[in-house]
Amino acid sequence: MSGARRPVVIAMLLHDDMVAIDHVAPATVFKLAGDTVIHLVSRDLKPVTTDIGQTLQPTTPYADCPAKVDLLFVPGGLKGTLSALSHQPTLDFLASRGAAADYIASVCTGSLLLGAAGLLKGYRATSHWYARDMMGLFGAETAEGRVVIDRNRLTAGGATAGIDLALILVARLRDQAVAENVQLVLEYDPEPPFQSGSPAKADPALVKAVLQRRGPLLDETRQALLRLGTVGA
Amino acid sequence: MSGARRPVVIAMLLHDDMVAIDHVAPATVFKLAGDTVIHLVSRDLKPVTTDIGQTLQPTTPYADCPAKVDLLFVPGGLKGTLSALSHQPTLDFLASRGAAADYIASVCTGSLLLGAAGLLKGYRATSHWYARDMMGLFGAETAEGRVVIDRNRLTAGGATAGIDLALILVARLRDQAVAENVQLVLEYDPEPPFQSGSPAKADPALVKAVLQRRGPLLDETRQALLRLGTVGA
Repeated sequence: MSGARRPVVIAMLLHDDMVAIDHVAPATVFKLAGDTVIHLVSRDLKPVTTDIGQTLQPTTPYADCPAKVDLLFVPGGLKGTLSALSHQPTLDFLASRGAAADYIASVCTGSLLLGAAGLLKGYRATSHWYARDMMGLFGAETAEGRVVIDRNRLTAGGATAGIDLALILVARLRDQAVAENVQLVLEYDPEPPFQSGSPAKADPALVKAVLQRRGPLLDETRQALLRLGTVGA
Repeated sequence: MSGARRPVVIAMLLHDDMVAIDHVAPATVFKLAGDTVIHLVSRDLKPVTTDIGQTLQPTTPYADCPAKVDLLFVPGGLKGTLSALSHQPTLDFLASRGAAADYIASVCTGSLLLGAAGLLKGYRATSHWYARDMMGLFGAETAEGRVVIDRNRLTAGGATAGIDLALILVARLRDQAVAENVQLVLEYDPEPPFQSGSPAKADPALVKAVLQRRGPLLDETRQALLRLGTVGA
């Protein structure tokens, strides 16, 4: 229906200690869209650990991923992101495939990996709300929005923002009718029972409690990004 | 904070050919809520296949699941649901644990399994929109709503409705502040990019196309439910 290459070739990064839903929700959307070839790319073929105790099985080590993909997709999870920040082959893989990809996308703290790989310098971008202030550490500009689109970079907020992001990507990579079909099949007509999904809407005491709980890991992540020094690179 | 037992004991069914997100989204919510013991219950300990090609690892065969759980949770996926409908030990497990559970919940076509196990007779309930008309086949009354609550039965619509459902369940099993904390951590402040998440909102041609594509499997499922004859049981 569209002029995009078919099948659409997607490389989805998997890394240890990632947040499962950051991958599973978008992967479900891409799979239902059809006419996709999805490479689940990781440092090796060992199952990757996730926050919910389930593992995810990669299909493709970095070296075997096609040089040119239509979409490079990076999940988050603070603990896993921090760990991946110190794994140079992961950053090299992102830099190399990102340089050639038609679209580059991240959900949650995945944008910190894109930034560390030098892929967000000069771009407007976002991340999980508690990591949004780190964009400057790799030369990106923090932007408001659940999904921030700047040229071919699409960065999304925390975890569940991956659904909105993936539908937008399907509309671009295939066409809007395909995305609407997927949305209907997944009955994505959300009705959050509470109004607590963003720091602007949530009880300030809750926001503070989350920031305190994640504080040490957020600080470690900031330090790791500073050490990488991507801004001046 | 609440009067509920802590830890909260949850039995989540896993079955072959289930939809991964039906489990992963609620499991993420329950895990973040904390103070939970989650049994991933299945017919045996073999990894269960899902729609996205990843497997999910059960922790507990039916026989080892506690007789009394706070919540019995059932995922869907049309193909997997149809298959599970003909597996009597699965229906027996649901009937037995459902009889004692404080709450019984399903997402997507999981409600058909609850119905087949006799757990929805006389209850208002829902399912994936394309299966909503099957409620009468096991003596339930089709109700409108993304999450339908009738006494201690909570049935949700397709796939993504599991997030809304799980947050409601956490508010009941723990308390609302815990649910709001989870919603904030998952940044669940959805912004669907298109208005196609329900048959009422989507292009009628899309709705028709989905029904035609799923028609044979929906017919088989209706036949299986009729054969089980739960209404008259």
